[in-house]
Amino acid sequence: MNKLWWERDDLCIKSSKLYFAGKVAADLYQQHGSPTFIYSFDRISHKLKSLHQAISSTRLKDRFQIYYAMKANRYAPLLTLVKQSGLAGIDACSPTEVEHAIACGFDASEISYTNTSVSNKDLERLVKHRDLIINCDSISSIRRLGEMSPGREIGIRINPGIGLGYGQNEKLSYSGANTTKFGIYQDQFAEALNTAANYGLKIVRIHFHTGCGYLSKQLAIWDNILSASKWFIEQVKDSLQAVNVGGGLGVPHVESDEILDLVQWANILEKHFAALDIRVEVEPGDFIVKDSGILLLEVNTVEQKRDTTFIGVNAGFNIALEPAVYALPFEPVPAVIRKGAEQKYTIAGNINEALDIWYRDIELSPVEEGDVLVLINAGGYSSSMASNHCMRGSFKEILLQ
Amino acid sequence: MNKLWWERDDLCIKSSKLYFAGKVAADLYQQHGSPTFIYSFDRISHKLKSLHQAISSTRLKDRFQIYYAMKANRYAPLLTLVKQSGLAGIDACSPTEVEHAIACGFDASEISYTNTSVSNKDLERLVKHRDLIINCDSISSIRRLGEMSPGREIGIRINPGIGLGYGQNEKLSYSGANTTKFGIYQDQFAEALNTAANYGLKIVRIHFHTGCGYLSKQLAIWDNILSASKWFIEQVKDSLQAVNVGGGLGVPHVESDEILDLVQWANILEKHFAALDIRVEVEPGDFIVKDSGILLLEVNTVEQKRDTTFIGVNAGFNIALEPAVYALPFEPVPAVIRKGAEQKYTIAGNINEALDIWYRDIELSPVEEGDVLVLINAGGYSSSMASNHCMRGSFKEILLQ
Repeated sequence: MNKLWWERDDLCIKSSKLYFAGKVAADLYQQHGSPTFIYSFDRISHKLKSLHQAISSTRLKDRFQIYYAMKANRYAPLLTLVKQSGLAGIDACSPTEVEHAIACGFDASEISYTNTSVSNKDLERLVKHRDLIINCDSISSIRRLGEMSPGREIGIRINPGIGLGYGQNEKLSYSGANTTKFGIYQDQFAEALNTAANYGLKIVRIHFHTGCGYLSKQLAIWDNILSASKWFIEQVKDSLQAVNVGGGLGVPHVESDEILDLVQWANILEKHFAALDIRVEVEPGDFIVKDSGILLLEVNTVEQKRDTTFIGVNAGFNIALEPAVYALPFEPVPAVIRKGAEQKYTIAGNINEALDIWYRDIELSPVEEGDVLVLINAGGYSSSMASNHCMRGSFKEILLQ
Repeated sequence: MNKLWWERDDLCIKSSKLYFAGKVAADLYQQHGSPTFIYSFDRISHKLKSLHQAISSTRLKDRFQIYYAMKANRYAPLLTLVKQSGLAGIDACSPTEVEHAIACGFDASEISYTNTSVSNKDLERLVKHRDLIINCDSISSIRRLGEMSPGREIGIRINPGIGLGYGQNEKLSYSGANTTKFGIYQDQFAEALNTAANYGLKIVRIHFHTGCGYLSKQLAIWDNILSASKWFIEQVKDSLQAVNVGGGLGVPHVESDEILDLVQWANILEKHFAALDIRVEVEPGDFIVKDSGILLLEVNTVEQKRDTTFIGVNAGFNIALEPAVYALPFEPVPAVIRKGAEQKYTIAGNINEALDIWYRDIELSPVEEGDVLVLINAGGYSSSMASNHCMRGSFKEILLQ
């Protein structure tokens, strides 16, 4: 059998069985049941190291910092091991996330905090952490933070007016032609600086986040975004300690997606920032955890209806919104590949909603009721966004260490 | 001031203050804080009674049953009062929903159970309730239920191949031209009956659910769907006790939406089913609770960015998916109407995601930071689908009795 597009050393089919992180997927199901998310810390560590390696091969090697975006997956054992590994700090976006990261071992100084529509109650919880640098994304938040905690070091989230994302998915457009809620645009940056100065706030970081899930194809836009950020950096160069280029690094979801070339990506970072005497920070989430996790499901129904053969499984879109809501598919793979010609299937969840389809029209080896079906790329923005819709919100999470 | 499209006796502006269920919204905020969903049981009861009244004015008056679709809102005090009112049974779609309904006072015989991709583990929990009628939506589930509990009374969920919904929103298409996972189509109905017969299962109900949020404009399609259902009814007329026409009755979301004419709706039911000696059942969810609930939010940010003035509030799309994900807006109304010319605002949540916009470009009286903003039509498919995304999942629910 030819290697499939998603196969790799730690996720592959051998002797008709799917292996993940050195384990037989069918055995993981036997042990843990389903629906169960299985995460591989080896893979997470490998992804973090690959980023370290790419940046370390540039002139930025002694002055970069990775912050893992915990909103992608905040499972406590996972955060605890990320802390233990020393490979990354945390990107947090709510006071409770900050508190959870600290509970998992991180120091406030290891957290990059950015949010939007921040309330005074949020700020009251945040300013308790003296070493936490808050990236303000509005003039209002600079003013309110300044009133509450004058003299503090802060970051400013800017909006370079250029965006990119998974196939230019409008739902994931953080910046670009349309005005978004995120960050301070060029035309109001002077006002932002004046507001900060009024309260003695020292601007030590420029932050931006311009998309979601970019791959090699989008690197030209990435280059433009970094160019656009330099105008902002220039305005605050006297106090600046770091530029934070946000997250958005993607992973392939379908065969036609080209993997993100980290060397090219790092070279673009180097090109723009090597000459500046500041730290370069990056906040990957999906890139670290998405392909480090799988979801184990049971097949309870196989049935043809008119022109479509449905595979019914024991979980629905409420425990992982991306396939149904964001059109980011999780490739389904049987845990054990049965003999026989491939057939076309549509994978349906168990929620009584029309959009509850995991995958449409995929060719798979024959699948029978009682089989185990594995969804790959389920490690990010799944459990962290899960709901109890229809009271079908139960699942397990297991971190393989 | 002219009456606004959504105003009614129990939801209106008087002396520049928003009233809901006889209470001043600003006072509710003072008492309960925010984010808080406030539900009015008077309104819920009114909606249920309006359905009773419409059907009672037809020849179906002595043989109909309403099942409230709890997936729209399963808040326990609300279910408990629905039970106490005697106005409706429960439409449930998972074993845990059945158990929750029973915990809130309903008897299994008062529950209509329908789901999709049902597992054997689900069936094991369901068959414990002897008086629960399970509406099977696949031949596979008929077979497996028959093996587990032969001789039982069951329903069959059919798919009439015609669908309707909120503006033909593809995400909400339960039946129609495209093959969906729901129900048994005409071409396999004979096989379904044979399978049931093999296990002595007695078919006492034909069930269908063909859309979501239909209003008067869609009543012609509604008429066609009921026509299409009669072929199925004819096949099982000897054992049939009830036809269940599902839910999907909608409420207006924007000014241009025309309210559902319940008299017309009931007359169509009567036209098709009055001559048959069976009970007629209906499973409204949104229709009962959506406009019976509001969401109280605090305005933490008011800031113009380029061409857009954003109002930032203290909750995001994760506690109510419909506006951002289903394009079903919740109309925003300030709790206290300030003097001054109306301005155009975009209401943004506090989640670090581009889609987290509550409402785009609405004309409101001037809004300031610290104000209370109320989202109306927030009573259905909000808290029941809420997630803890970004760890911003905290909210309160209050039922006004």
